[in-house]
Amino acid sequence: MAINLDIPARDAVFPVPGIRIGMAEAGVRKANHRDLTVLLLDEGTTVAGVFTQNRFRAAPVQVCERHLSSGSAIRALAINTGNANAGTGTAGLQASDATCQALAGQLGLKADQILPFSTGVILEPLPVDRIIAALPAAVASARADHWFEAAHSIMTTDTQPKIHSARVELAGQAVTVTGIAKGAGMIHPNMATMLGFLGTDAGLPAELLHTLAKRIADRSFNRITVDGDTSTNDSFIIMATGASGMHITSEADPRFAALEQALTHAARDLAQKIVRDAEGSTKFMTIQVEEAGNTAEALQVAYAIAHSPLVKTAFFASDPNLGRILCAIGYSGVPDLDVSKITLWLGDVRVACNGGRDPGYQEADGQRIMAAPEILVRVALGRGQASDTVYTCDLSHEYVSINADYRS
Amino acid sequence: MAINLDIPARDAVFPVPGIRIGMAEAGVRKANHRDLTVLLLDEGTTVAGVFTQNRFRAAPVQVCERHLSSGSAIRALAINTGNANAGTGTAGLQASDATCQALAGQLGLKADQILPFSTGVILEPLPVDRIIAALPAAVASARADHWFEAAHSIMTTDTQPKIHSARVELAGQAVTVTGIAKGAGMIHPNMATMLGFLGTDAGLPAELLHTLAKRIADRSFNRITVDGDTSTNDSFIIMATGASGMHITSEADPRFAALEQALTHAARDLAQKIVRDAEGSTKFMTIQVEEAGNTAEALQVAYAIAHSPLVKTAFFASDPNLGRILCAIGYSGVPDLDVSKITLWLGDVRVACNGGRDPGYQEADGQRIMAAPEILVRVALGRGQASDTVYTCDLSHEYVSINADYRS
Repeated sequence: MAINLDIPARDAVFPVPGIRIGMAEAGVRKANHRDLTVLLLDEGTTVAGVFTQNRFRAAPVQVCERHLSSGSAIRALAINTGNANAGTGTAGLQASDATCQALAGQLGLKADQILPFSTGVILEPLPVDRIIAALPAAVASARADHWFEAAHSIMTTDTQPKIHSARVELAGQAVTVTGIAKGAGMIHPNMATMLGFLGTDAGLPAELLHTLAKRIADRSFNRITVDGDTSTNDSFIIMATGASGMHITSEADPRFAALEQALTHAARDLAQKIVRDAEGSTKFMTIQVEEAGNTAEALQVAYAIAHSPLVKTAFFASDPNLGRILCAIGYSGVPDLDVSKITLWLGDVRVACNGGRDPGYQEADGQRIMAAPEILVRVALGRGQASDTVYTCDLSHEYVSINADYRS
Repeated sequence: MAINLDIPARDAVFPVPGIRIGMAEAGVRKANHRDLTVLLLDEGTTVAGVFTQNRFRAAPVQVCERHLSSGSAIRALAINTGNANAGTGTAGLQASDATCQALAGQLGLKADQILPFSTGVILEPLPVDRIIAALPAAVASARADHWFEAAHSIMTTDTQPKIHSARVELAGQAVTVTGIAKGAGMIHPNMATMLGFLGTDAGLPAELLHTLAKRIADRSFNRITVDGDTSTNDSFIIMATGASGMHITSEADPRFAALEQALTHAARDLAQKIVRDAEGSTKFMTIQVEEAGNTAEALQVAYAIAHSPLVKTAFFASDPNLGRILCAIGYSGVPDLDVSKITLWLGDVRVACNGGRDPGYQEADGQRIMAAPEILVRVALGRGQASDTVYTCDLSHEYVSINADYRS
C-alpha cells in the first residue's frame, strides 16, 4: 500500500526536448513484460551521475563511472530489470560492456557514450544476449512522450510508478523538469536497487551539472532509508539537454538557483515516492534534526531514529512510544551528547525536554499525531545551528512477509 | 519460542557462598508477582560493573556508576522489574537514591554500598514507596539457594529464565560460578534492558575484577544484538565473594586464566541465552569475521550483517540469499574494502569468493545450512589477522507483532 503517492496523469508528464525513450521485451527474467528501456539523448546533452557507496558495486555501476569519467559525451542509457548484474565479477563487466557496444553500434556511437543500468536478482549471470537482441526494438520505439511508460518499464517490485514532471519559469523563460524513479525498499530480496533519472531541457556544462547532481542527491536520494540496506546498484542520473535554448554556465547566473530548486524539488519528490511505496510501509515519516553541532551529527541522530526497528514498529502500531525515540537518540553515537538539552516533538506536540517527558505532554496528543499516515519527528539537540532531514517509513508485518518470501 | 535454550535443573544451580538472594512482591506494575529481588553480599566481596553506553542512561545506572566509583564496599543489590526508571530526570535519581537508603538502613550499611537496578517501562515515575515497603520482605526471604528463583523474578518479557552454573577446578581447588540474566530483545516496547549478574566464591581485588568485567563483557554481553537498539539500562555485574578461601591477586597467578575462562564461558552462555529467547526469534546466528585488519573492522562487518533487516528476514525464511550478506559486507563502511578478497561460508559450505558466487556452490547445500535452527556465518576479509564474533537472531513476524503491540 503506497502512502499518499500521487501519479500524474499521462498528459501531465511533459516530454523533455532532446530526450526520447523506447522500451522492449527482452525476456531477461520473465516473458511478455517490458524489461528493457533506452533513453536516447540529443547531441549537446550533458549527463552527471551519483552512485552507490556499497563496496560491492554492481558491474553496470562500475561501467557508468568509467564512461562518465572518460570525457566522452553520453548519448544513451540502457536499463534492464530482472537482473542486477551484481556480484558477477569479470563476466558481469563484460556483459555490461557488451550491452554498451551493441547499443553504440546501432546508434553510430562509441561504447563509452552509453550508460548501462541493471536492477533485479543479484549473483545471477546477466542474459546479455537477450538484452542485445531486444535493443533494436527498444530504439525503434523511442518517442519523446514515453516518460510515463518508462516509469512503468523500470519497475521491479514497485507497486506504483514514480514520476515527477513540471514546467518552471526561469527569468521569464519556461524549462521542463521530468523524472522517473524505481525502488521498493532499498533492496528487495534479490531485487536490488534504487534508480532515478531526471531530465531537463535547460543546458548546463558537465562540471556544473556534476556538482549539482551531488548536492541534489544529498537532499533527496541520499536522505531516504527504508531498512538501512544500501544496494549494490543505486544510481541517480541528471541529463540536461539544452534543447530549450537556455544555457546556464555558472552558479552566479540568477536562473541557476531557480533551476537547482526545481531539480531538487523533483528529486526529493521522486525519492519520497520510493519511501511512500516501500515494502510493507504504512506510514511516511520525516525525521528532522535541528540545533546539531554539524550536519554529520544531525544525520547520525536522524538515521539512528530512522533505522531503529523499535521506533519503526511503534510507528506501525501508531504507538507514541517516546522512550524508543529518546533511546535511539541516546545511542546514536554523538559524542558528549547532553540529553538534558534535547527537545523532541511529534508533529506540533512537544513530548520531551530536559532529559525526560514534557510535563505538559498528554498521551492523547501523541496518539493523534501517530494515527496519521504522515508523521513529523522533530529533534532539537541544543548543540549548534546545523540541521538535516531524513525520510523513512515504518516496519510492518508486510515487510517481513515480502522479504522472507523465497525468491520467486 | 526460545532456540535451544537449556535451563538447568534447580539442584544443578550451585549457590555461591557469600551471596544470599531474596524476593518479594512490590506491585511495581502488576500485583501477585515477584518483582523485587535483592542480592546480599558478605563482607569482603568485590563487585565490578559494565553499563550501557546509551547517553540516556537510566537513573539506576547513574547511581550504580557513582557508588562503584565511590570506593565503598558494595554489600547489596536491589533489582525491580515493571519500571526502568529511565528518562525520569532528577526525580528518578532521587527514587534510586531512596531505594539505596532504605535498603542500607535495614542492613546497617551506607547508601553507597547498594547498587540499584530497574527494568520495565521507560518514562514513567518509579513507584519507589511500594519498592521500599517491600524491601523488608525481600531481605527476610534471603537464602543462598535462590538463584533459580531469582532468574525468574528478574524476568520481564523473557519467555525463559537464563541461568548458568558450574563448579570449576582451579589448580586442584573447586570454585563456583553461577549467574543469571534477563532480556528479550535489547529493549522490549518500554520493557527495557539486559541485566546480567555473575557470582563466584573466588576472591579478586576490585581493580582486577573491574578489568576482568570489561574484558568478559566484550566477549559476551557486548557481542550480542537483536535489533541494534542499545537500551538505557543495560548492566552486567560480577561479584567475587572470596568465600572459597581462594584469593587471586594478580593476572600472573596461574589460576587467573582458568577463572577468567570459566567466567567468560558463563557470561557468554547467559548472553547467548538472551539472543536465544529474543523477541520473535526462530534462528540463532553466529557471525564470525576473520582476516580483518583490526578488531574494530571485524566488528563493523559482523554488525552490518547482524543488523541488516534483509539478512535477518532471509534467515527467518531459511533462504540462502547470499547477495544480501555480501551487500551488507559491502556497505559496512570498512575503508578500501577489496571485495575480490572476501570469502563467505554458511556453516561449512563456501558460498562466495573472488567477489562473486563460489563456482562450486550448490544452492541445495546453502539451504541445508539455512534450515537448521543454529547457523554459522563466517566471513574472511583477506586484510589481516584480527577476528571477532557477534551473536544474533533472525527477524520474524513475531518480532513485529511483539513490538507493535500497544504497551499493555
